[in-house]
Amino acid sequence: MVLARRSFREAIIALGSDIPKPEFVNLSAGWETFNKTGVALPKETVEVLKSECDCALFGSVSSPSTKVAGYSSPIVALRKELDLYANIRPVVGVAAKAGDKPPVDLIVVRENTECLYVKQEQQIEGPNGKEARATRLITERASRRIGEMAFKLAEARPAKQLHIIHKSNVLSITDGLFRETVRGVPALSGKYGDVTIQEQLVDSAVYRLFREPEIFDVMVAPNLYGDIISDAAAALVGSLGLIPSINAGDDFVMGEPVHGSAPDIEGKGIANPIASIRSAALMLRHLGYTKGADRLDVAVDQVIREGRFLTPDLKGKSTTREVLDAVLGKL
Amino acid sequence: MVLARRSFREAIIALGSDIPKPEFVNLSAGWETFNKTGVALPKETVEVLKSECDCALFGSVSSPSTKVAGYSSPIVALRKELDLYANIRPVVGVAAKAGDKPPVDLIVVRENTECLYVKQEQQIEGPNGKEARATRLITERASRRIGEMAFKLAEARPAKQLHIIHKSNVLSITDGLFRETVRGVPALSGKYGDVTIQEQLVDSAVYRLFREPEIFDVMVAPNLYGDIISDAAAALVGSLGLIPSINAGDDFVMGEPVHGSAPDIEGKGIANPIASIRSAALMLRHLGYTKGADRLDVAVDQVIREGRFLTPDLKGKSTTREVLDAVLGKL
Ligand SMILES: CC(C)[C@H](C(=O)O)[C@@H](O)C(=O)O
Ligand SMILES: CC(C)[C@H](C(=O)O)[C@@H](O)C(=O)O
Repeated sequence: MVLARRSFREAIIALGSDIPKPEFVNLSAGWETFNKTGVALPKETVEVLKSECDCALFGSVSSPSTKVAGYSSPIVALRKELDLYANIRPVVGVAAKAGDKPPVDLIVVRENTECLYVKQEQQIEGPNGKEARATRLITERASRRIGEMAFKLAEARPAKQLHIIHKSNVLSITDGLFRETVRGVPALSGKYGDVTIQEQLVDSAVYRLFREPEIFDVMVAPNLYGDIISDAAAALVGSLGLIPSINAGDDFVMGEPVHGSAPDIEGKGIANPIASIRSAALMLRHLGYTKGADRLDVAVDQVIREGRFLTPDLKGKSTTREVLDAVLGKL
Repeated sequence: MVLARRSFREAIIALGSDIPKPEFVNLSAGWETFNKTGVALPKETVEVLKSECDCALFGSVSSPSTKVAGYSSPIVALRKELDLYANIRPVVGVAAKAGDKPPVDLIVVRENTECLYVKQEQQIEGPNGKEARATRLITERASRRIGEMAFKLAEARPAKQLHIIHKSNVLSITDGLFRETVRGVPALSGKYGDVTIQEQLVDSAVYRLFREPEIFDVMVAPNLYGDIISDAAAALVGSLGLIPSINAGDDFVMGEPVHGSAPDIEGKGIANPIASIRSAALMLRHLGYTKGADRLDVAVDQVIREGRFLTPDLKGKSTTREVLDAVLGKL
């Protein structure tokens, strides 16, 4: 986690005058924080983010795999607290030659505030044992704003294709609302007339992502499907350690590597820093610092293409520090 | 659909004395039926299945992609009506040489009656527009019986590994109940002590299915995750047109090819009959007709390995009829 933050910080500092006077503050969240303070997401973290920061990077944190009283995933809470309604996850392979079309090049636009992530769950003792229920919430408002975001991103791309991912053959009301609301965005906004709209059931979408990823350009999905298809897409480009994301709202943006905390390699210094560096790039691009963002991405592309400094997840032998230095050296 | 049924029927008849005196009855369900009769799953279909049949094959049917008043997916309804609580989906590649270990060899055991498939959905007009809610139900009873089925299948395999697929880092109550109940099966039943239990979050499971499918042996999952991971696994072996499944309850079993109705090739006579033939084999095995089931599977393996008669989904040029005849010729 510290190294993820360090990669992020050093990458931004290395951009020099492209990013005028960056200032950094460390804030805590997660399992370690919970063990120290009794809360996974301290109030102070949220308040400082809201009052003092323009953006943030969320380094992956560990969560316990069994239910622990009082513990709740801090990333889910942060998305809600800061109303970061769009989780944007570009999955882009690196072509063998600079300038060539990459083998996979798509963006997953994931709704980030509702679906089963509203975490309204109850358990009762029924006549045949325990019964647990969770609520899946889909609103017109949230579907519309994520739809807008997806259309905007699709329109800016050469292919201008938007796939709506749903399961409305089973969830005709909730996924039906998502699907129809997203479809309605062009009519409502009077924009995006040149974006082609397609659809795919979530199960088929995963199947086709594996079989023919080139058919996808921008994919928009409710929260849980988006979680799953972004991992599926990530598998296509070689390592989760490459995939960045941002959690974006109207007033705030938070970068987040898509990979988890990888407890199996913790402390070994070999975590891939690329997802964090690319998350910095994505965040900067979202904030309008296009030049700095491009420079970071080009530097990462070069390092991957050369293949001299790669972490073990990419079958290399380098450490996090060595890969970070290789990227910084290209800037 | 007719051809799927025909493949199924002819394969069973061709087994001769291995399956004593099979009798067949055609029953209707689906979109066409809905258009003719106003219901997607006629009462008669359910009643004849319950009173006269030992087993069934469900040929894929089309469902409309938008909500149509009165229409509801017949497969979901059939699973519920007949209490076919386990959806068993073996995904097995064909090794280049007979007797070799296939590249992918796993079974998805999907809970088939609850989760979001209970279809309890409502929509209201909220202060900011429409709001839709669906209920996700997980019970101890259903989790226990699917757990039992999964352990039983895992125990019969060389690797004896069971992966529980869930998302309890977000859904700590519903997926927590699923996870703990399945984990509790060995203690409760006093069996399965030699099965190794592992876990994987659903998003990571999809990622790892792509990256290292060999780590999976038997996977047990709540309904929706099972739907998605079985499609993901299917992508690994070349075509959805190869993947069989059964919907099994305590008193009835229904075969079902995992692929959909493939409207893009409808009427062309080139749908892959293998998923239907393998579904027949799986169903027969479940009913205790091991010898007949093995003969069918071996015949299919031979046809795939020879590669002379394959449908276009496997890059071949044969028709459904030709592939079916090739398989029957091997029996
Ligand atoms: C850690 C977990 C709560 C999170 C999610 O499901 O959103 C993660 O999988 C992600 O994709 O960011
Ligand atoms: C057709 C649809 C309702 C069904 C499901 O989701 O169960 C299908 O995808 C399947 O896997 O059998």
